[in-house]
Amino acid sequence: MTKPRKPLILVCNDDGIFSQGIKALAEIADEFGDVAIIAPDRQQSAVGHAITVSTPLRARPFRIDGRFDGQAVSGTPADSVKLAHNQLLDRKPDLVVSGINHGSNAGINILYSGTVSAATEGTILGYPSIAVSCTDFDEDADLSGCQDAARKVIGYVLNHGLPRGVTLNLNAPSGPLKGIKWARQANSRYVEEFEGRVDPHNRNYYWMTGKFQLLDEDEKNDISMLEKGYASLTPIQYDLTAYSLLNDLREIEL
Amino acid sequence: MTKPRKPLILVCNDDGIFSQGIKALAEIADEFGDVAIIAPDRQQSAVGHAITVSTPLRARPFRIDGRFDGQAVSGTPADSVKLAHNQLLDRKPDLVVSGINHGSNAGINILYSGTVSAATEGTILGYPSIAVSCTDFDEDADLSGCQDAARKVIGYVLNHGLPRGVTLNLNAPSGPLKGIKWARQANSRYVEEFEGRVDPHNRNYYWMTGKFQLLDEDEKNDISMLEKGYASLTPIQYDLTAYSLLNDLREIEL
Repeated sequence: MTKPRKPLILVCNDDGIFSQGIKALAEIADEFGDVAIIAPDRQQSAVGHAITVSTPLRARPFRIDGRFDGQAVSGTPADSVKLAHNQLLDRKPDLVVSGINHGSNAGINILYSGTVSAATEGTILGYPSIAVSCTDFDEDADLSGCQDAARKVIGYVLNHGLPRGVTLNLNAPSGPLKGIKWARQANSRYVEEFEGRVDPHNRNYYWMTGKFQLLDEDEKNDISMLEKGYASLTPIQYDLTAYSLLNDLREIEL
Repeated sequence: MTKPRKPLILVCNDDGIFSQGIKALAEIADEFGDVAIIAPDRQQSAVGHAITVSTPLRARPFRIDGRFDGQAVSGTPADSVKLAHNQLLDRKPDLVVSGINHGSNAGINILYSGTVSAATEGTILGYPSIAVSCTDFDEDADLSGCQDAARKVIGYVLNHGLPRGVTLNLNAPSGPLKGIKWARQANSRYVEEFEGRVDPHNRNYYWMTGKFQLLDEDEKNDISMLEKGYASLTPIQYDLTAYSLLNDLREIEL
């Protein structure tokens, strides 16, 4: 009888392979199976679901803490997961996890997030996938509660799987875990998004900045759960069709 | 009595301000109101919903064909729309249109599309927004049918508006317009996505390539409508919550 193989867990992120967060997530993945870290070779925040089509990609092997084998990819988070699936892994992963991102990916930030896009790409390729982010931007933030939340969600998904086409998006505050709450993506936006400045040559330039605004009226959303100190867990989908409208619109002849 | 102001239409894209497609779309927008072209200063395909947070943005005024005033932005399509809204326009637009993209943005490609992300950003900012793409990649493709479709959809949206949170995603074949069909985002994916090569220094590199695969079983999707020669029109949303699952998932304690 052959020994049953341990699950293979692909770990990716958007902060790059040398971030604290990816190490913290690999440690949790390691409790459940074999770990392969395949992630961007540098910071790729706010890249959304970008992919690299006009330059070739490279992958460079590396080792973190003398413990985890990995490959550093010269591309985006979505590139990394695609390349892992198509070329770099010698067996199919049982799970894709992305993170731990330094900074939350809740509300409208889900759209801009490279962390979430790596997990979404995992889902597109047919793997159960989870994105994990911590509200704290500090590289030395206490990720222990976020790790505890990730452990629960990874354990659940490895046991029960996920419906096709659905990604889980997990966010947690820094510090100890108070609990995990299911939530929807908050209706939210940024206002006053740019600061205009004038350079020494008298030309204008603009820094992206902005204030986050929560527009939701009830509290069953990810941002509100995080504000109350809970971890939030949101099932998201990459079929963007607004089905609730499509039937009515079909009546309109153009 | 003051003369009623013409609608202001913001035109963006992801192929950059010097593409044929953006000119073709500006010509149609011009039939309905005042046109402001604010778009990336270079090709930005497949950037998804990327935004630029770690470098400042610049905008440079330009004129196309001695006819349309515009600004070329040193960033992504989403950056361009945000900067237009926050800093560059002196009044709020009545409509945001993005395109005409050289290459369709249907099925899974919607996720990777800079063209669609510019329109989505318009929706996030509260403006009725439309993305327009042509299936033909050729810079000299016959965009007349695509322009006809855009004219119909722009006319409809300026008259009737759009529900909040919804973007219209229009795709059309090159050549004359056969008709416009409402459709959902096709369930689709890419397979065999990379071609591995070895460089003169004996190191591996990978080109993204891949075959598009339609997984849908019925024909009410965007890809199938395009294959039949119709333009496809899909309402899409940026709330990614998988609501159909959320109620069941709430029963699960983690």
